Amino acid sequence: MALIVQKYGGSSVADAAKIKNVARRIAATKENSNDVVVVVSAMGRTTDELIALAHQISDHPDDRELDVLLSTGEIVSSTLLAMALKSLGHESISLSAAQAGIWTDTAYSRARIITVDAHRIVKELGGGKIVIVAGFQGVTRDMDVTTLGRGGSDTTAVALAASLKAQVCEIYTDVEGVYTADPRLVPDARKLRDIAYEEMLELATYGTKVLHPRAVELGQLYDIPILVASSFTDSPGTLIHGGIAMEVRNKVTGIAHDLNVAKVTVLGVPDRPGIASAIFEPLAQAIISVDTIVQNASVERVTDLTFTVAKNDVDRAMKVVEPVAKSIGAKGCVADSKLGKVSIVGTGMLNTPGYAARMFRALYEKAINIELISTSEIRITCIIDESKVEDALVALHKAFELEREENEI
Amino acid sequence: MALIVQKYGGSSVADAAKIKNVARRIAATKENSNDVVVVVSAMGRTTDELIALAHQISDHPDDRELDVLLSTGEIVSSTLLAMALKSLGHESISLSAAQAGIWTDTAYSRARIITVDAHRIVKELGGGKIVIVAGFQGVTRDMDVTTLGRGGSDTTAVALAASLKAQVCEIYTDVEGVYTADPRLVPDARKLRDIAYEEMLELATYGTKVLHPRAVELGQLYDIPILVASSFTDSPGTLIHGGIAMEVRNKVTGIAHDLNVAKVTVLGVPDRPGIASAIFEPLAQAIISVDTIVQNASVERVTDLTFTVAKNDVDRAMKVVEPVAKSIGAKGCVADSKLGKVSIVGTGMLNTPGYAARMFRALYEKAINIELISTSEIRITCIIDESKVEDALVALHKAFELEREENEI
Repeated sequence: MALIVQKYGGSSVADAAKIKNVARRIAATKENSNDVVVVVSAMGRTTDELIALAHQISDHPDDRELDVLLSTGEIVSSTLLAMALKSLGHESISLSAAQAGIWTDTAYSRARIITVDAHRIVKELGGGKIVIVAGFQGVTRDMDVTTLGRGGSDTTAVALAASLKAQVCEIYTDVEGVYTADPRLVPDARKLRDIAYEEMLELATYGTKVLHPRAVELGQLYDIPILVASSFTDSPGTLIHGGIAMEVRNKVTGIAHDLNVAKVTVLGVPDRPGIASAIFEPLAQAIISVDTIVQNASVERVTDLTFTVAKNDVDRAMKVVEPVAKSIGAKGCVADSKLGKVSIVGTGMLNTPGYAARMFRALYEKAINIELISTSEIRITCIIDESKVEDALVALHKAFELEREENEI
Repeated sequence: MALIVQKYGGSSVADAAKIKNVARRIAATKENSNDVVVVVSAMGRTTDELIALAHQISDHPDDRELDVLLSTGEIVSSTLLAMALKSLGHESISLSAAQAGIWTDTAYSRARIITVDAHRIVKELGGGKIVIVAGFQGVTRDMDVTTLGRGGSDTTAVALAASLKAQVCEIYTDVEGVYTADPRLVPDARKLRDIAYEEMLELATYGTKVLHPRAVELGQLYDIPILVASSFTDSPGTLIHGGIAMEVRNKVTGIAHDLNVAKVTVLGVPDRPGIASAIFEPLAQAIISVDTIVQNASVERVTDLTFTVAKNDVDRAMKVVEPVAKSIGAKGCVADSKLGKVSIVGTGMLNTPGYAARMFRALYEKAINIELISTSEIRITCIIDESKVEDALVALHKAFELEREENEI
């Protein structure tokens, strides 16, 4: 008998009819001779509604209290799902984070899981029950409720799968899997049968919408295969795992993009030690996330330094950087908020010549200007005009023949 | 420094504005050099909405899961109230039943409190915090959530007051206190400054709307004075306690009534041992609550036996009793659903002659026929036509001069 952990997102349990539908899927898994642990998110927009309620009370709701408040959303959905399973004749029990033994640190609203003490889950599974665990939440050593922040329920599911040594962690959501590119923008985008953990992580913004990087990293750390699939269809989904023959494959797996990109360029920066930290430490203190950083070749000991931030951070970033630029003797700062990012992602790609060149040519043939380039082991990213992102995606998808089935290559 | 336990009902915390209002009242109590523990109900109609949601999932929602589901209502209101107090500059913390140490048996939906382990509450009070406890719920030894059923939050408040040896348990609700009769029916009804536990218990249906008998009994057991007052005004309310000089007072405190009364009469019952149990055991098995039971004097070893039930139980009661009546050789059964009940309540009343006579005369003068009479130590009840209940209340209120202030008598 295999143990399977399944996670259902908020849109999959948005109302009573959808909860009953999810219960039927879980029942089918159980009837297929599996032990099943289910992690569930709050129904539909519940979390947003609870946040709005808190803001009616206070402009700055207390962290601890807000976490307790939000945790009720997943408790509600977990009890309803357990009721629905009982109606189908399956013994089932809902467990809160405290009951499920999900212990975290005390960082309210963004707690990290320290350990999982699954003895209650194991006991209930031993009694033949389907166990429903409220996602997104944990409990501190003092028995105070925490929430895990973004990607919380995905993380709960993978953490439980790791702790219980589950065969697979199945994440059911409102998309059918991971595609070679965003299917809303690239009509030829093809659903991947599988993808490596690292590749999934590099899919960045597009990938985040499917599965939070935090959950992918945890899966990688404990080597838990993660299946991403739709809760509304029986389509097979995409398996994220580490068992792909990396060195053999050496190809582009998918194309990521991000429309939320702005760049700030500090012009005429004196090229001497300590300049980079003089610029980036104040940004970190202002809690502004910096993505790509590019420094042009120094000409006469003066350089231009460019970095990208999220669009809604660009004004704050300029306010932080302008006085610094002045103090270090730079010529000034300019910002551009109308940018986007396209990346080709594939394990081992950088060890194989020609990928970068093929990418740049595909963009050139569409007359798309490249503002910045950055690379990682398995990714090449170009920053371009935001209005060209969709064209770039289609062109790159075609250039790397991603519409073809993997076994055709 | 005194310790005060306050309880606010669902209508007092029905929306954000009302929660802020309640927070101001709690803050004022704290600022008056008191330690404060607050028990809060779910907001407005939350509990009913959650029950409706459960019934969308299942016709017979699982007991355990329903309790967990319902418990979220009080957790939501307790966190919001703690946030509101923080906004007012008061350190505050919300605690679930598990955190507050409210241990119950495992009777889901109607759990009984076994003990209160208040060490967390004491610790938080010691840290200067106002402690907000989610009412209506408890936790079993296995850490499963239970709800306490009717009167649950009132019971939580009195149990905490008893455990913490509070000076007083203040129950804030949408009425201003306990009246000599229902003020909606008796214009002259006067709010009582105080009332004995026993008298409050005998106020029956009318009293139940103000404070559940379960909470009154608990207050009596642990000698905790209970103040009932409005959360919307600064009117002083009514103190329920045991410190009233019972033997001295000997007067009518208030008049209770109940419009939900039906009677069933078994005619021509052979007067022999075992007949009463033959009739009432099947009723108990059918979970039909029997209130007043009256057996007329036996004439030629044949008697009539009458009992009252709630109106919506009368058809079921007839179905249970008719075959029994046949089997024991009674002549038949008749039911009357158009009845009501009026009671005069007062400690020590029965030891003082003349009260019963005065009650019967007042009804006679209004041409109100008495169908049944029953009495307890501190109560005389007459069952009358339901259409006459309001007239009877007004007549009795006048006959016993309840509109006069207590210190005038």
